[in-house]
Amino acid sequence: MTKPELTQAILAAKAAKQLTWATIAQAAGLSEVYTTSACLGENALAEEPASKVAALLDLGPEAVRCFGEWCNKGEAAPSVPKEPLQYRLQEVIYIYGPTIKALVEEKFGAGIMSAIDFTMDIDKVPDPKGDRVRITMNGKFLVYKTW
Amino acid sequence: MTKPELTQAILAAKAAKQLTWATIAQAAGLSEVYTTSACLGENALAEEPASKVAALLDLGPEAVRCFGEWCNKGEAAPSVPKEPLQYRLQEVIYIYGPTIKALVEEKFGAGIMSAIDFTMDIDKVPDPKGDRVRITMNGKFLVYKTW
Amino acid sequence: MTKPELTQAILAAKAAKQLTWATIAQAAGLSEVYTTSACLGENALAEEPASKVAALLDLGPEAVRCFGEWCNKGEAAPSVPKEPLQYRLQEVIYIYGPTIKALVEEKFGAGIMSAIDFTMDIDKVPDPKGDRVRITMNGKFLVYKTW
Amino acid sequence: MTKPELTQAILAAKAAKQLTWATIAQAAGLSEVYTTSACLGENALAEEPASKVAALLDLGPEAVRCFGEWCNKGEAAPSVPKEPLQYRLQEVIYIYGPTIKALVEEKFGAGIMSAIDFTMDIDKVPDPKGDRVRITMNGKFLVYKTW
Amino acid sequence: MTKPELTQAILAAKAAKQLTWATIAQAAGLSEVYTTSACLGENALAEEPASKVAALLDLGPEAVRCFGEWCNKGEAAPSVPKEPLQYRLQEVIYIYGPTIKALVEEKFGAGIMSAIDFTMDIDKVPDPKGDRVRITMNGKFLVYKTW
Amino acid sequence: MTKPELTQAILAAKAAKQLTWATIAQAAGLSEVYTTSACLGENALAEEPASKVAALLDLGPEAVRCFGEWCNKGEAAPSVPKEPLQYRLQEVIYIYGPTIKALVEEKFGAGIMSAIDFTMDIDKVPDPKGDRVRITMNGKFLVYKTW
Amino acid sequence: MTKPELTQAILAAKAAKQLTWATIAQAAGLSEVYTTSACLGENALAEEPASKVAALLDLGPEAVRCFGEWCNKGEAAPSVPKEPLQYRLQEVIYIYGPTIKALVEEKFGAGIMSAIDFTMDIDKVPDPKGDRVRITMNGKFLVYKTW
Amino acid sequence: MTKPELTQAILAAKAAKQLTWATIAQAAGLSEVYTTSACLGENALAEEPASKVAALLDLGPEAVRCFGEWCNKGEAAPSVPKEPLQYRLQEVIYIYGPTIKALVEEKFGAGIMSAIDFTMDIDKVPDPKGDRVRITMNGKFLVYKTW
Amino acid sequence: MTKPELTQAILAAKAAKQLTWATIAQAAGLSEVYTTSACLGENALAEEPASKVAALLDLGPEAVRCFGEWCNKGEAAPSVPKEPLQYRLQEVIYIYGPTIKALVEEKFGAGIMSAIDFTMDIDKVPDPKGDRVRITMNGKFLVYKTW
Amino acid sequence: MTKPELTQAILAAKAAKQLTWATIAQAAGLSEVYTTSACLGENALAEEPASKVAALLDLGPEAVRCFGEWCNKGEAAPSVPKEPLQYRLQEVIYIYGPTIKALVEEKFGAGIMSAIDFTMDIDKVPDPKGDRVRITMNGKFLVYKTW
Repeated sequence: MTKPELTQAILAAKAAKQLTWATIAQAAGLSEVYTTSACLGENALAEEPASKVAALLDLGPEAVRCFGEWCNKGEAAPSVPKEPLQYRLQEVIYIYGPTIKALVEEKFGAGIMSAIDFTMDIDKVPDPKGDRVRITMNGKFLVYKTW
Repeated sequence: MTKPELTQAILAAKAAKQLTWATIAQAAGLSEVYTTSACLGENALAEEPASKVAALLDLGPEAVRCFGEWCNKGEAAPSVPKEPLQYRLQEVIYIYGPTIKALVEEKFGAGIMSAIDFTMDIDKVPDPKGDRVRITMNGKFLVYKTW
Repeated sequence: MTKPELTQAILAAKAAKQLTWATIAQAAGLSEVYTTSACLGENALAEEPASKVAALLDLGPEAVRCFGEWCNKGEAAPSVPKEPLQYRLQEVIYIYGPTIKALVEEKFGAGIMSAIDFTMDIDKVPDPKGDRVRITMNGKFLVYKTW
Repeated sequence: MTKPELTQAILAAKAAKQLTWATIAQAAGLSEVYTTSACLGENALAEEPASKVAALLDLGPEAVRCFGEWCNKGEAAPSVPKEPLQYRLQEVIYIYGPTIKALVEEKFGAGIMSAIDFTMDIDKVPDPKGDRVRITMNGKFLVYKTW
Repeated sequence: MTKPELTQAILAAKAAKQLTWATIAQAAGLSEVYTTSACLGENALAEEPASKVAALLDLGPEAVRCFGEWCNKGEAAPSVPKEPLQYRLQEVIYIYGPTIKALVEEKFGAGIMSAIDFTMDIDKVPDPKGDRVRITMNGKFLVYKTW
Repeated sequence: MTKPELTQAILAAKAAKQLTWATIAQAAGLSEVYTTSACLGENALAEEPASKVAALLDLGPEAVRCFGEWCNKGEAAPSVPKEPLQYRLQEVIYIYGPTIKALVEEKFGAGIMSAIDFTMDIDKVPDPKGDRVRITMNGKFLVYKTW
Repeated sequence: MTKPELTQAILAAKAAKQLTWATIAQAAGLSEVYTTSACLGENALAEEPASKVAALLDLGPEAVRCFGEWCNKGEAAPSVPKEPLQYRLQEVIYIYGPTIKALVEEKFGAGIMSAIDFTMDIDKVPDPKGDRVRITMNGKFLVYKTW
Repeated sequence: MTKPELTQAILAAKAAKQLTWATIAQAAGLSEVYTTSACLGENALAEEPASKVAALLDLGPEAVRCFGEWCNKGEAAPSVPKEPLQYRLQEVIYIYGPTIKALVEEKFGAGIMSAIDFTMDIDKVPDPKGDRVRITMNGKFLVYKTW
Repeated sequence: MTKPELTQAILAAKAAKQLTWATIAQAAGLSEVYTTSACLGENALAEEPASKVAALLDLGPEAVRCFGEWCNKGEAAPSVPKEPLQYRLQEVIYIYGPTIKALVEEKFGAGIMSAIDFTMDIDKVPDPKGDRVRITMNGKFLVYKTW
Repeated sequence: MTKPELTQAILAAKAAKQLTWATIAQAAGLSEVYTTSACLGENALAEEPASKVAALLDLGPEAVRCFGEWCNKGEAAPSVPKEPLQYRLQEVIYIYGPTIKALVEEKFGAGIMSAIDFTMDIDKVPDPKGDRVRITMNGKFLVYKTW
C-alpha cells in the first residue's frame, strides 16, 4: 500500500461513513490540520493515532504501517497552484512576502520562521458581514547561525 | 516619483532616523503589515495616513501623492521565492495546500478565502523553548456563485 | 466515480442522445456556462440540479453524488493554452490587461473584479458582416481592505 | 519618442491635469478601452484622434507620430500575470476555457472568437449588494477554413 | 473512439494498405495538408469527406462520427519542438518574426495574417542542386478593429 | 556601432526620409525579406548592398562595416512570441507541425527543409472577400545522412 | 510495433545474447553511432541493414518494418539533460558555444555546421594518464543563403 | 576592468587591426579554441600568454590582470541556444545523447567524459561536395567512484 | 527487471525483513551512501556486492544482473526539489554557491570538485542542544585544462 | 551603499591589497565560509567583525552599516546554476537527494537538516593521486512537529 493508495482508501471510507475531517482528527487525538495532512499523504502518523484512525475507518494493519512511513512531502504539488483557494495564498506571498520578511526581522533579528517546528490552525470566524477564514501559522523562530 | 523611488526614500529616511516599522505604522494609524506593505509599494495609502507617514519621515507632497497611486501588486515578485524566510511559506503551500482546501470546504462549503478582503498580523510569541513567529491571515469567505 | 469519469459519462450520454449543452442547462435550471462547466468538472452541482441532469442523461445516483463534490478547479489547465479559441482570451489579457486594470480602478477605486462572485454568459450576436461571439463577464467589485 | 516614452508623457500630463481616461477617450472620439490601450502603448491611433488627444494633453507632433506607429502588442506582458485584478481573468481561462470552447462550438460550429475584429467594454453595474464589474468582449466568429 | 484512437486506426490502415497521404486526400476531395491534419487529429472532417476516407481505409461509422468532432487543436504540441524538421520552422519565427511583421504592416497596415481563414500547401520543387521544399501559407489579412 | 544601434539608425533614417522597406530592398538589389531582416539585425549584408543601403539612408562607413558583421541570429527573440501576428505562425507550428513532417517525409523521404539554404517571400494577394497574406518558404531538402 | 517497443526488444535480445553495439553495427554494415541511434529509436534503418540486425537479434519482419519508419527525433529528450555524461556536452555548449561560432565563421564565413548531413564517431584514446573519450562531429558547412 | 569589458576591448582591437583568432592564438601559444574562449571571457589566461595577447592587441596591464581572473563560466548562456549554429549542437544532444552514453559505457564502463580535463578542436575539412566542419572533443574518461 | 522494479523489490524486502540501509551496506561491503543510492537506482553494483545484497534480501539472479546495469543517473529528479530535506541543500547552493566557488579557487586554483571521483558520508553528530546532521562531500579537484 | 556595492568595494580592495579570503576571515574572527558569504552579500556581519573587516580593507563606516543589514539571501542565484563548480553540487542533489533523505530518516527519524542552524567548511585534502576538495555541511536536525 502506497501513500496515494492510503489516501484513496481514506477518502472512500470517509465518504461511505459520512465522516468529517474533524471527527477523524478527534479519533486521532491530533489537530485537524495535521490529521488531514497525514490522510492526504503529506505527514506521517505514529502507531497510536494511526491505529485509531484505521479503526474508525475500518482500514487494516497495512494502513497503519503505511501511515507510519515517511513522506515525499510537497513533491506532487504544482510549482504554482492554479486552484483558486490555494492560489490566494500564493498571491499573499507575492504581495506580502517582503513585508513579512521586514517585520519578522524587525521583531526577531535575522532568521526565519520554521516550517518544520510549525503548527497551523484553520478556523471559521463568524461575522455578520460574511464569515471569515482564519489561518494561523505558528513556527519557531530560527536565528541564522554565525560561525 | 515612482513607487520604487518612494520605497527607496522611505528606507533611507527610516535608516537615518532609526525608526521601526512599528513606529511608522503607529504614525499612519494602521496595522504594521498594511503600513509596511504600502511603504514597500504593494498597497496604497489614503491621503491622511500618507500625510502622517510623510511628515514623520520628512518626505514631501510628492510622496503623499505617490502613496495614493494604485499598485501593480505582486508583479515584481519571483514566481517562487528563493529567499529562505519567504520560501518557507511557499513550502507550506506545497505541503498543506490541499489540506487547507479540504478543511475550508468542510467548514464553509465550496468557496475560497479572499486575499482582498483580507488582513494579516505578524506576532512574536515568547516561548522558553525558543520564541515563535505567529502569522494570522484572516480573509472573508467567498462562496462560489451559482447562476 | 471521479470528476473526469463523470465528464466522460456525460459526454458519452450527450452524444448518444444528441443533446445540446443548452438542453442540459435547461434541465438543470441553471445557466449554460455554469452547467457546462459543472459537466466538464470545474464546478459542483447541488443535489436538485444534479438529479435533473442525471435523469436527463440516464446517469445513476453515483453521478449525483459526484456532481456534488468540490472541484480542484483549474488545476488541469495548461499554464498558457495552445488551443486557438482559448488562446485568444489569453492574448486579450496580454494586450488589454493593464487597460482593464486602469479602467476598473478609475471607475471603482483600488480593488478587483471577483472571479468567485462571478457570472459569465456567451451569446451569438447575428451580424450581416459575420456573426459575433459576445462573452459577458460580471463579477462583484471587491475593494482592497485597509487595516 | 518611443511608445513607452509616449505612455510616460501621457500619464504625467493626465496626472498634472487631473484628467480621467473617460475624458481622454471622449476627446479621441473612441471607446474608453481602445483609447486607454492606445495610451498604454498597445494600440495605434490614427492621425485625427491622436491629434485630439495630444491637444488635450499638450503633447507635441512627435506624440501624434508616435501614436500612429504600430505596436509590439502584448510582448511586454508577463506570461501569467501576478497582479490580482489581471490574474482573476487568467483564472477564468483556467476554469472556464473548455466551457467557452464547448459553448462557442455548439452555437457557431468549429471556429474561434477573433481577438482582432474585437471590441471590449468595461462597465460599472450598480448593485445594492455591492457594485459589479461587467466586461463585455465581442469578437467576430471566424470559422475554420477547409481546403 | 477518441481522436488519438482514430489517428492510430488511420495509421495502421494506411500502413497495411500501403496508401499515401496524397491518395487519402484525393479520396476526401480535400487538400493534402488539410486531410492529413484531420487524420492526425488537428482538424475535423465533415460527413462526406469523412465517409470517403473511412471507406478507403475500411473504418466504420464510429470513425466518421469521430472525424466530425471538434478538436483540442495544438494542445498536445510541445511549447517548442525538438524534432528537427519542425524546429526549423520555429527557427524561422525566431529569426524572421519581426521581419514578417514589418513587411505585413508595410503592405497591409496594422493587423495580422489569420491562422483560421488560412490554407497551407507543401510542394516539392525539383532543383538540379537539390530538390526544395516549398511551404505556402495563405491567410486572410485581418485589420485591427478600432472602436 | 553594434547591430542594435545600426537598426536604430536605420529606423530613424527610414522614418525621416519616409522610405519603405521595398525601396530599401530595391536599393540593396536584394529581396524585401532578406534586406529587412538585415536591417533588423538578423542577417549580414555584403559590402556592395550594404554601401547602397547606407548611401540611401545617409549612414556612414561604420554602418557598412556593421552590416557586414555576423549576427547572433534569433537569440533576442522570446521563446514563444506574444505579439499576435508572430504568434499566429507559432500556432501554425502547434497545429500543423506533424502534418508538415508527414507530408515532407512522404514527398522527399526522411530529412528536413533547410532554414539556412532558405528563402522566404511575403506577398499581398488581392481578394474581393478580403486581401490575403501569402508567405512562401522555400528551403533545400536535406536528407538525413547514414554512415 | 512502435519505435519504443522495438528498442525494448533490441535491448532484451542484446542482453540475452550478450552482444555489443559494435557487433550489431558490424552486422548492419554501418557505423556504431548510427546503428546504435537507430536501435535507440532516433534514426531509421533501410531494409538491408534492418534485416541484418533483425537476423542477428532474432527479431521478426515487424522489427524490420519498424526500423524503416521515420522518427520523431529528439522529442523525448529533456530540454536540458540531468544525466551527468550527457550534461557535460550541454556544459560544453554553455561554455564554448560562442567560441565555436566565432571560429566556424572565421574559417568558413557566415553559416552553420549541418546536423543533418552529419556524422559522429566516438573513440577510446588510450593514454597513460587515463584513457580519453574522443567525440568527432563532422557536418557539412551550410552557408546562409542571400536572396 | 571586468571580463565583459575585456572582451569588448579585444573585439574592438581585433577589428581595428584586422586580426584573426588564429593569429591571436598563435601569439598566445595556445590552441585557437582555448584562446578564443579566453578572449570571450569563458577561460582564464596565465600571465605569459595573457601578456602576449595584450601586446599584440595593444591592451594594457589591466587586461593582463583581467585575463588571469577566474570566470563565471557558462552562466551568461541561454538555457537552450536559439542561435542556429549553436542550436545544431543542442540538437545533437537531443538526438544522440543516449547513443553517446551507450557507446561510452560499452567502451569504457560506467563513467563520463570530463568537460574539465578536456580539449576541443575545430577544423575545416575540404570536400568537393562542400567543405565540412569537424569538431573534435577529447575529454578524460572519469570512472564513477565506488566507496 | 528494470531499475525502478529492482528498487520496488528492495524496498518491499527491506520492509518485510525490517532491515536498515546500514545492514544492507554492511552486507555489500560498501558505504551506506553508495549502497543506498545503488538500491534507489542511481548507481550500479558490481557482481560481488550485488550478490551479497541479493542474498540478504532473497532476491534472485535477475536482481544481480539489474544491479550491474548502468543508470540514467539523476534524470528522474525534479529540476528543483520541493521535498523539504532535499530543498535545504538546494538553498545551500543558492546562498553559498558563489562562496564555495571563491574558496575552492583560492585554495586550489581554477577548477572544480569532481562529482564523479566523489564520496559522500552522512553522520549523526550527538549534540546536547540537538543532534546534528553532518554531510561530508569529498571530490577530487579537477584543474581546468589549458591547451 | 547597497549590498552589491559593498561586494564590489570589497573585491576591489581585496585585489588591490592582494589579500585572501582566509586573511579577511581571520580579521573577522569568523570562519572562511561565513566571512566570504557575508562579503559576497549573502550573510550579515555584526558590528565587531564588520569593523575589523572594514579596517583591514580601508572601507568606511558606511560599509560597516551595510554589513549589518539583513540580506535577500539566495534571490539573485539562477534556479539551476550553469557554472561548472556549482553545477556539480546541483548534480549531487539530483543523484543523491533521495539517498540523503533515506539515510537521514533512518538515523534521525522524520525531519530535516537545518540550513539555518548550519555551518559549512571547505578544506583541501592533500592526496598523492590528486588533491581533494572536502565540503562539510553540519546542520541541526529538526524533527517534524506533530500537533
